[in-house]
Amino acid sequence: ELPFTLIAGPCQIESRDHAQDIAAALHEICHDLGIGLIYKSSFDKANRTSIGSKRGVGMASGLEILAGIREKFGCPVLTDVHSPEQCKPAAESVDVLQIPAFLCRQTDLLLAAGETGAAINVKKGQFLAPWDMANVAAKIASTGNERIMLCERGTSFGYNTLVNDMRGLPIMAQTGYPVVYDATHSVQQPGGLGGASGGQREFVPPLARAALAIGVAALFIETHEAPDRAPSDGPTMVPLSEMRALLTRLRAFDRLAKQDA
Amino acid sequence: ELPFTLIAGPCQIESRDHAQDIAAALHEICHDLGIGLIYKSSFDKANRTSIGSKRGVGMASGLEILAGIREKFGCPVLTDVHSPEQCKPAAESVDVLQIPAFLCRQTDLLLAAGETGAAINVKKGQFLAPWDMANVAAKIASTGNERIMLCERGTSFGYNTLVNDMRGLPIMAQTGYPVVYDATHSVQQPGGLGGASGGQREFVPPLARAALAIGVAALFIETHEAPDRAPSDGPTMVPLSEMRALLTRLRAFDRLAKQDA
Amino acid sequence: ELPFTLIAGPCQIESRDHAQDIAAALHEICHDLGIGLIYKSSFDKANRTSIGSKRGVGMASGLEILAGIREKFGCPVLTDVHSPEQCKPAAESVDVLQIPAFLCRQTDLLLAAGETGAAINVKKGQFLAPWDMANVAAKIASTGNERIMLCERGTSFGYNTLVNDMRGLPIMAQTGYPVVYDATHSVQQPGGLGGASGGQREFVPPLARAALAIGVAALFIETHEAPDRAPSDGPTMVPLSEMRALLTRLRAFDRLAKQDA
Amino acid sequence: ELPFTLIAGPCQIESRDHAQDIAAALHEICHDLGIGLIYKSSFDKANRTSIGSKRGVGMASGLEILAGIREKFGCPVLTDVHSPEQCKPAAESVDVLQIPAFLCRQTDLLLAAGETGAAINVKKGQFLAPWDMANVAAKIASTGNERIMLCERGTSFGYNTLVNDMRGLPIMAQTGYPVVYDATHSVQQPGGLGGASGGQREFVPPLARAALAIGVAALFIETHEAPDRAPSDGPTMVPLSEMRALLTRLRAFDRLAKQDA
Repeated sequence: ELPFTLIAGPCQIESRDHAQDIAAALHEICHDLGIGLIYKSSFDKANRTSIGSKRGVGMASGLEILAGIREKFGCPVLTDVHSPEQCKPAAESVDVLQIPAFLCRQTDLLLAAGETGAAINVKKGQFLAPWDMANVAAKIASTGNERIMLCERGTSFGYNTLVNDMRGLPIMAQTGYPVVYDATHSVQQPGGLGGASGGQREFVPPLARAALAIGVAALFIETHEAPDRAPSDGPTMVPLSEMRALLTRLRAFDRLAKQDA
Repeated sequence: ELPFTLIAGPCQIESRDHAQDIAAALHEICHDLGIGLIYKSSFDKANRTSIGSKRGVGMASGLEILAGIREKFGCPVLTDVHSPEQCKPAAESVDVLQIPAFLCRQTDLLLAAGETGAAINVKKGQFLAPWDMANVAAKIASTGNERIMLCERGTSFGYNTLVNDMRGLPIMAQTGYPVVYDATHSVQQPGGLGGASGGQREFVPPLARAALAIGVAALFIETHEAPDRAPSDGPTMVPLSEMRALLTRLRAFDRLAKQDA
Repeated sequence: ELPFTLIAGPCQIESRDHAQDIAAALHEICHDLGIGLIYKSSFDKANRTSIGSKRGVGMASGLEILAGIREKFGCPVLTDVHSPEQCKPAAESVDVLQIPAFLCRQTDLLLAAGETGAAINVKKGQFLAPWDMANVAAKIASTGNERIMLCERGTSFGYNTLVNDMRGLPIMAQTGYPVVYDATHSVQQPGGLGGASGGQREFVPPLARAALAIGVAALFIETHEAPDRAPSDGPTMVPLSEMRALLTRLRAFDRLAKQDA
Repeated sequence: ELPFTLIAGPCQIESRDHAQDIAAALHEICHDLGIGLIYKSSFDKANRTSIGSKRGVGMASGLEILAGIREKFGCPVLTDVHSPEQCKPAAESVDVLQIPAFLCRQTDLLLAAGETGAAINVKKGQFLAPWDMANVAAKIASTGNERIMLCERGTSFGYNTLVNDMRGLPIMAQTGYPVVYDATHSVQQPGGLGGASGGQREFVPPLARAALAIGVAALFIETHEAPDRAPSDGPTMVPLSEMRALLTRLRAFDRLAKQDA
């Protein structure tokens, strides 16, 4: 249980070199801090705000890059899937399939993901209550696959705004499945820039501290060497150069929370 | 513009006979009232709250039943699609493809639907602001297909509750696309029954009056001869026996709204 | 029951002449349209966003001006009270005491208002559900005064935003007390201008139509001959010059709603 | 800055003996843990959900009891005020005047409180954004009194539900005033029991940990030797017997948060 696992990487796969550079940096930090790393990156941004936004490198190329990272650094890799057909091939290259929040109620996707036997990280829909996730998990578990993680990434709060109801962390934990706190998408301002989502990167550290103080199994943070030049989620990603200090500090809160819990 | 078009039918296709019986009743009412009818029914309920819920008759069978209704009653038919692959075959049998609210940001689905050339009814996601729908419509329009309808069906408001922000109707109308008011799903209480969504059928008439008084191009109402025995959306469907009186009254509000607008 | 009563006037009392000019204009319009008028204006804006905002003419002067309008035009007058002490003197000059939304749970104020025997218009707090208003009304009714009106003016929806849940109108009507729709404050954007509240005057007509289509006993609309120069609530007030056309149209929706309800 | 100050006591003053018993227990715990204590209790519950709820011992009697606690235990005492008239007498007996959330926009109350020169703890209204509190503080500061604390106690989230947006803590801290986290009222379910507010006492410890991990100057927790028999706020108060263990644990999170902040 100790310490939290880190799910981290750049929002989308930009190139093999870029992916490997970030993986190398994260791998070194996590090794030094004794934190388990799951490398995360997307091969396709399937639900961008605008049609003009960049989509990504595509599945075949993306999965190959992720498999390369798994091999080179020996760490599990995670990517998100958007259709039942993607689940099987993705599960051959990655360790964890992630279900996007908007898709967390799509039965066929949940079943196809579950049937691969891979671990599944399901994001809680912005339109769901934390207790609704028990039904979501039960769809996956109906395949016999109980390797399920439930992930908080914010709930709709008025327009173009998300809020983290931190009570959701212990509520989702009552299912018995590990709970992940996604600090990156929790600070998203959906559609807040008109044709793109805005974000409040400055709140990643305090909210991550809060989540760890309550107690979570894993933390999800997207990172990039130059977030403001990234093709997606720039406003919410933490600069890679700040990750070591951030994680060092977060590890202390995690330890304290799990010390006599 | 006058009067509103009615999009109606049972939530899901139960059988050929059941579909035809409801179509016959709706066809007669709409004919008598001079209201255009688009018959609506789903071949697959792809995002039910629980894994144990009924899914439907399947695509092949469902599309055949819908095509039969189109032929027999001469009215356009509508069904919802859940993946890019479903769009082309569905568009061969139905006139209007509907994009479910949870899927309204899935770029591939919007593009595939648009490319069929069929009319598209996109539900506003419960997690979106009305002004965010301009970006959704632009994705479809990028295919050259401008036959787009934007549909209000409620916005997340706390947990297990939706609210209609009626300002959303004129805001979405500013796109220039016709606006649909979905009175059925607006009174849904998502996940409100634990393993299923609840609903408040009693608010369908007042909310539909309100939407028509503001001004909409079409009204979406699911109906069933015995809603409490229906395999889905029972708590929100209007009994078929009440539809004639309801529509008669709603038509008067629509006329008044469009009279000197 | 027919037609709706209009509660209208400028947000605050600016001067005797100003108040009388607006009263004269409203009185003539309402007389022509056969609509009952309750003249509304505030002698003190007790909860402005900023300390620098104008507060008003004060109680003594304000009540005298309102009493003068009552006498001159023969119409009931309404003003809002902010403390138990204000209730008795206010009730000597006006017919209806109004409880501000922020104060709708203050027991002493509700009791003091009730004890005057005057009619009471209680605004639903932005932080309350419509069904919570039964408890608010019961506090007033405990004084033996059942002359209670319950007023919808929007509910908190995220930050700096209100939404009208139109279901609240029939829900509050279940108490048996007449329901008022406040179209002016419903389009307020609280704190939306930083040091002042913003507003969306353009939504007053559609939302008022919606409320009347559902069915309300009274409509509350603030008006001013030059809203953008008004000392408060400018962004939400309807220009006086537009009131006749607006009310003519609204009266038609009210008639239709009450025709065969 | 280190450690946090504790604002604690029973929701309302029940009797001199009861108040002193709880004060004695809290005083001992805080002394042992090196935490500064501000004893809190209300002499009047001025905005109960229902008219039938208990109001309290009254101002004269309540202030005397609080002054007695201040004298006996040498700790500052806090109570809430509901009208401008109460401020001066209250400030003669207590050290901190508290402005209730519903009343945080009432200019006269804020000014009267400020003019006493006492420290002021203002609760953020459930209907306000965290940044709106700068205007509230400015009203108080206009009296020359800068001894202001800003207190988070939840924001309206749908009906009968509050949510803590933890970003509000650093946002309010940008004013330069100390920020208080009220763990008790944050877990209130307003009106959730029909004629009374419900609550979720079980979330006090995790939410308090989260707030301290983010960083606050003070923590507000109501406590009672038998919460379920208390005349108000029973469902949200922490049993007195659990306070020592809870505070011990919370102190560790506070230390860690302030260690290298």
